[in-house]
Parts: sequence; C-alpha cells; structure tokens
Amino acid sequence: MREEIVDAALAQFHEKGFNAAAVKDITDRAGVPKGSFYNHFASKEALAIVALERYGEQRRLKDLADPAVPPVERIRKHFEFLRDEVVQFGITRGCLLGNFGTEIVDHSDPIRVAVNEGLGYWSGLLGAAIAEGQQAGEIRTDLGPDRTARYLLSAWEGTLIQARADKSQAAFEVFFALTFDSLLKP
Amino acid sequence: MREEIVDAALAQFHEKGFNAAAVKDITDRAGVPKGSFYNHFASKEALAIVALERYGEQRRLKDLADPAVPPVERIRKHFEFLRDEVVQFGITRGCLLGNFGTEIVDHSDPIRVAVNEGLGYWSGLLGAAIAEGQQAGEIRTDLGPDRTARYLLSAWEGTLIQARADKSQAAFEVFFALTFDSLLKP
Repeated sequence: MREEIVDAALAQFHEKGFNAAAVKDITDRAGVPKGSFYNHFASKEALAIVALERYGEQRRLKDLADPAVPPVERIRKHFEFLRDEVVQFGITRGCLLGNFGTEIVDHSDPIRVAVNEGLGYWSGLLGAAIAEGQQAGEIRTDLGPDRTARYLLSAWEGTLIQARADKSQAAFEVFFALTFDSLLKP
Repeated sequence: MREEIVDAALAQFHEKGFNAAAVKDITDRAGVPKGSFYNHFASKEALAIVALERYGEQRRLKDLADPAVPPVERIRKHFEFLRDEVVQFGITRGCLLGNFGTEIVDHSDPIRVAVNEGLGYWSGLLGAAIAEGQQAGEIRTDLGPDRTARYLLSAWEGTLIQARADKSQAAFEVFFALTFDSLLKP
C-alpha cells in the first residue's frame, strides 16, 4: 500500500504541483482509504520527499555514466529522453525538481534540501560525463566540467519553463542547438 | 483600491505561489474587505494576469534598450539587478514568470498565454541588445541573437531554481561566468 501511495503521489505532484495535490486526491488515485495515509507518512511534506527520490530513480540518470556510449552522445540521449517524456504528456508537467524548486523550496526546508540534493546528484553525473568528453576531445576544455554541468542544468530547467509556456518544442530546439553547437563544442 | 489589491497580489503570488495565495490573504494584505475583491476582478486567475503585467513593468526591462550603455554591460547590469533583488529577499521568491511557468501554466490557459507573452517580450528586448552587441563586436556572431536570448533566459530561470534550492549565490556565479566568458564572448 505504501508503494501505491508513493506512485500516486508522484503522478499527482507532477501533474498538479505540491499545493494543489491534496492527500485525499493522492489516496483516491492510489485506491486506498484516506485514513491509511498517516500510517505510512508523517505528512504530505514527508511523502513529497519520497516521491522526489522515486522521480530521480526513474530518470535513467545512470545512463550518463554508461561507458559503452561516447560522452556527448550520452548527454544528448539523456536530454532527449527527458524531452520525449514532456512531449508525450503534451508539453506539460516538466521536471519535478524544477517544479518543487519554484513552488515550495521557500516554504519547506526539508523539501528544499531534497531538491538541492537531487540537483547536486544529477549535476555530478552530468559533470563526470562532461569531464570524460573533455578527455576524449569531444567537449571544449576551457570551461570546468562541474560549472558547465550546472549551467547546462539551468538551461534545461528554463527550457522546460519556456516550452510549457509556449506549448511548443521551439525551446527544445534552441536548447539542443546551443548546447551542442556552442556550450560544449570544442 | 484596485491598485492596492494588485500590489498585494503581486507580493503574495511572488512569496507564496498561485495556489497558496488565497484571495482572503490578498485582500487582508491590501487592507480592503474581501467582499470588494469581485468588484474589481472576475477571479484570482484574472488578478494573476494583471499582477504579472505589473511584475514585468517593475523589472526595468527598458534598460536593455538604453543606447547610453554598451550592450554587454546593459545585459550584465540587467541580470545583476534581477540577482540583487533575489539576494535582498534571502534568495527566495525567484522570478514570477518562472514560478507561474512551472506551477500553473498547465492548468490555466490564460495564465499560460500571459507567461508566454511576458517571456517573449523579455527575450525580444534581450535579443535586440545581443544583436547590437554583435554589431559592436562585443558578442560572438555565430549564434543568432534571438536563439541566444532564449537560451540565456532559460539559463537564468534555471539558475534561480538552483540558487533557491541551495540558498547560496553559487549558481549566480556560474551563470555570470559562463554567460559572459563563453556564451556571449566573441
């Protein structure tokens, strides 16, 4: 039952945001009685942190460290995977880290810390792939890999904002063109 | 009374987000009776669009077109102004366009259109300053000014997410370094 609540919560938070996702909607979606919620979670805030962990697990971040694929191709495929998921949902929902990162981090320190850790883990993997690409001569070497990873993450999160506002893929096209033809290009 | 409601709504939406800003909190903040709200606005959604316009008016966007300042310096000062505002509030609140752009655009088409227009107006001014900088030899010319402006906006919006999650200025330092030493550099 706990697993069903986490899955339902992840979907509900991703679709509606933190504040608009009521506990009753989450337990209804999970098909469990509302009363059972507090047997498993101390609060909606505690559930949000578990849902955020599950979100991270489902984003195939480990593919960023796959030695069978050249580093730049890995990075490109990673963002294509994330883009395709957003497109599949009609250019809605975006990234749960970015959504919580604008809606709720100022108001919940535990969620803020979880978002920050998620972004740090992600940019760490991205930075390692960039460093590998630099060693392989695929990526320019005048920018530090960790700072480049942070900038790239920022560009991605803002791209999601622009794509959702425009309900079009134009922002994705700009992201892929400038990231791979300019930011990373040797 | 209408002006006071708009000012209070802007502050409340910026601090709390759309869903967490109740009409009663807005009218309390404005010091007006809750009953007066619907004399001025059809809905919280309609008020949010007016608040978003006011937000844009207060962001000194016209400075991006000031011919007395060299283009790159104009762009740098623009983002420094936006950064300083966020720092002044303890690295909270972020950008109202980005906040509505993650929390509410999937659920209100009028707000989505207003966010998209705001981003378009902003990137238009930024793109014009970039084009001027290219003509002046201050900015690399191999990237189109409009796409560069869009990418820069994305990087900025994501930087706000990372800065708020980390409650530090580290993401701002990365933004300024990579934007001016790499993305725009000739």
